[in-house]
Amino acid sequence: MRIHNFSAGPGALPEPVLRAAQDALWEHGSHGIGIAECSHRSPQFEEVLQSAKSRLKTLMSLGDDQHVLFLQGGARQQFYQIPMNVLRGGRATYLDTGTWSAGAIDDARRYGTVDVGFSSREQRYHRVPTQGEWGTLPEGTVYLHYTSNNTVAGTEYHYVPDAGDAMLVCDMSSDILSRPVDGSGFDLIYAGAQKNMGPSGVTVVVVSDRFLAACDDTMPGLLHYPTEVKKDSMLNTPNTFGIFVIDEVLGWVLDQGLDALDAKNGAQADAIYGLIDELPRYRGLAEKASRSRMNVTFTTGDAALDTLFWKQALEEGLSGLKGHRSVGGLRASLYNAQTDAAVEALASYMRRFAAEHGEDG
Amino acid sequence: MRIHNFSAGPGALPEPVLRAAQDALWEHGSHGIGIAECSHRSPQFEEVLQSAKSRLKTLMSLGDDQHVLFLQGGARQQFYQIPMNVLRGGRATYLDTGTWSAGAIDDARRYGTVDVGFSSREQRYHRVPTQGEWGTLPEGTVYLHYTSNNTVAGTEYHYVPDAGDAMLVCDMSSDILSRPVDGSGFDLIYAGAQKNMGPSGVTVVVVSDRFLAACDDTMPGLLHYPTEVKKDSMLNTPNTFGIFVIDEVLGWVLDQGLDALDAKNGAQADAIYGLIDELPRYRGLAEKASRSRMNVTFTTGDAALDTLFWKQALEEGLSGLKGHRSVGGLRASLYNAQTDAAVEALASYMRRFAAEHGEDG
Repeated sequence: MRIHNFSAGPGALPEPVLRAAQDALWEHGSHGIGIAECSHRSPQFEEVLQSAKSRLKTLMSLGDDQHVLFLQGGARQQFYQIPMNVLRGGRATYLDTGTWSAGAIDDARRYGTVDVGFSSREQRYHRVPTQGEWGTLPEGTVYLHYTSNNTVAGTEYHYVPDAGDAMLVCDMSSDILSRPVDGSGFDLIYAGAQKNMGPSGVTVVVVSDRFLAACDDTMPGLLHYPTEVKKDSMLNTPNTFGIFVIDEVLGWVLDQGLDALDAKNGAQADAIYGLIDELPRYRGLAEKASRSRMNVTFTTGDAALDTLFWKQALEEGLSGLKGHRSVGGLRASLYNAQTDAAVEALASYMRRFAAEHGEDG
Repeated sequence: MRIHNFSAGPGALPEPVLRAAQDALWEHGSHGIGIAECSHRSPQFEEVLQSAKSRLKTLMSLGDDQHVLFLQGGARQQFYQIPMNVLRGGRATYLDTGTWSAGAIDDARRYGTVDVGFSSREQRYHRVPTQGEWGTLPEGTVYLHYTSNNTVAGTEYHYVPDAGDAMLVCDMSSDILSRPVDGSGFDLIYAGAQKNMGPSGVTVVVVSDRFLAACDDTMPGLLHYPTEVKKDSMLNTPNTFGIFVIDEVLGWVLDQGLDALDAKNGAQADAIYGLIDELPRYRGLAEKASRSRMNVTFTTGDAALDTLFWKQALEEGLSGLKGHRSVGGLRASLYNAQTDAAVEALASYMRRFAAEHGEDG
């Protein structure tokens, strides 16, 4: 029996997608072959790849000057691939809002100058900046990099930063497709699939012609975005099963509608944050204005009680509520596939736990 | 209904593995969560990872000084990751026996001097060298690199090259686990999983302490083997579903036994090569002593007839027989999961086709 899954990633997938994936593993459509067993150059797989690209372009309102890639190596590969291609000794501004931003900064420093335009590190990454808080970008800034949702701290930008004349680069791993976003203004978007789009092992990259024109042409092909675009993600064998699942998820997102998912995600987050604010037993870890709708981070204020919370929850069929090992506390991830039944079960559990374990002094 | 699948990769998977993967997608064991939906740091996945490592160590007779990694980016990522880490302006000898060797050479040249110890390129890669044919390795050679099986040309080494004092590096993508091989003498083995081990999107890497000690410590973590070993393949989220399937395949290989698979693979290849040699309609593309047991390449000697062969075969439920686009002709891939029923169906079809289409002049 399937239990309620609040994992921060790899996260829960929509059940109709899981059913479709089970079928396709044995026989994909009427091809007589499983989706994991066919050549990536077969018409069978080509159809899946083109469908996934086309669906993502529709969902993110991408322009003709933007290209969709399905790469490997996770978001972390993009941490170095981006500056390796376009920084080239120049400078870029990074907004430091969490573990993953900091990792991106570390890698970028190998290839040029990083200006940290904003950092909430000293405040345990409790918030993201407001629009323009990073001031004017230095002359010659190649790009502005930000992380739209921070899975560890539980913060999220509720606007798109203005990069001025610089290129706009975003790690959208953990909130991509969680609401309507006009993707046409981005020069590079990257996202590990394992939160809102599919299984781990695929990185979705959207890259603009402007970004491609700035790339260093001496990179090995696999690290060179223009080559990957020219080869349509098939310079080598891509993660075919992963791309199939992504295509199914994108079809499911189209069926649900981004507006409906936006409303669902907002309502689910409101339900849990509402309890955190209502019950003195709990305290949210992020500033209210920066709260993530994807990853709700909170604590009882007592490490031993936090541990009891997630352990007892697991026994009751609520899985994945332990906070990230770097910050402790508790975390409930509410990605697109999260069900209302799971959120209701969590809310009920939180009320009972608070009643049983008194209130924080 | 499933048809016979001769795809060169991603290739056919054992049917019991597909059934296990279907089940685990919905609910893995009694965890209440699908294998693609759990955190890579959960005990649920950790068990899978350790099992896969341990099974591979057993199957390949690896030593305590060797480490198993599950990376991303395919074999092609290893083309640059290897020289980037250990070549560092020095020299390495490459044996050029096909498309993939040549790709590895191209990438290695960015990081040092490549001595091509042997090349059959001018003869359309019709053979691999005999032991020692590359002569004495130049003074200071860091490693000897070879491709144990060449999927495009259909050739295979039937011995392990002697690298002398240099480190031994092998792209074993397409014949790993097809027979007993003592892996303990290798400094680095890499293999894309999508031929003999699982779906695409995972690269199995075996790396020795000697190799790790030679690595450049200024690499980004994701490209730095010692960091990947220290993090046990989890510097970032690995391809969890892919690793699960690999673990299931490794369990299946242990159940079959490498000796039994060796015998099966030999018998299947002999059956098809036997027909190629018996029927004048067909001609093998590789020299006999270098023939691959994994990828049987052949032709009718007539491009239009080759096309008719694979198209008509597809109608009869024999899929994936078209040769690689770079060489044309025909190719039957006979990886571990290939069934005797499929090989018998192919043999029968080859006889009928030869009878119907006369003999080559």
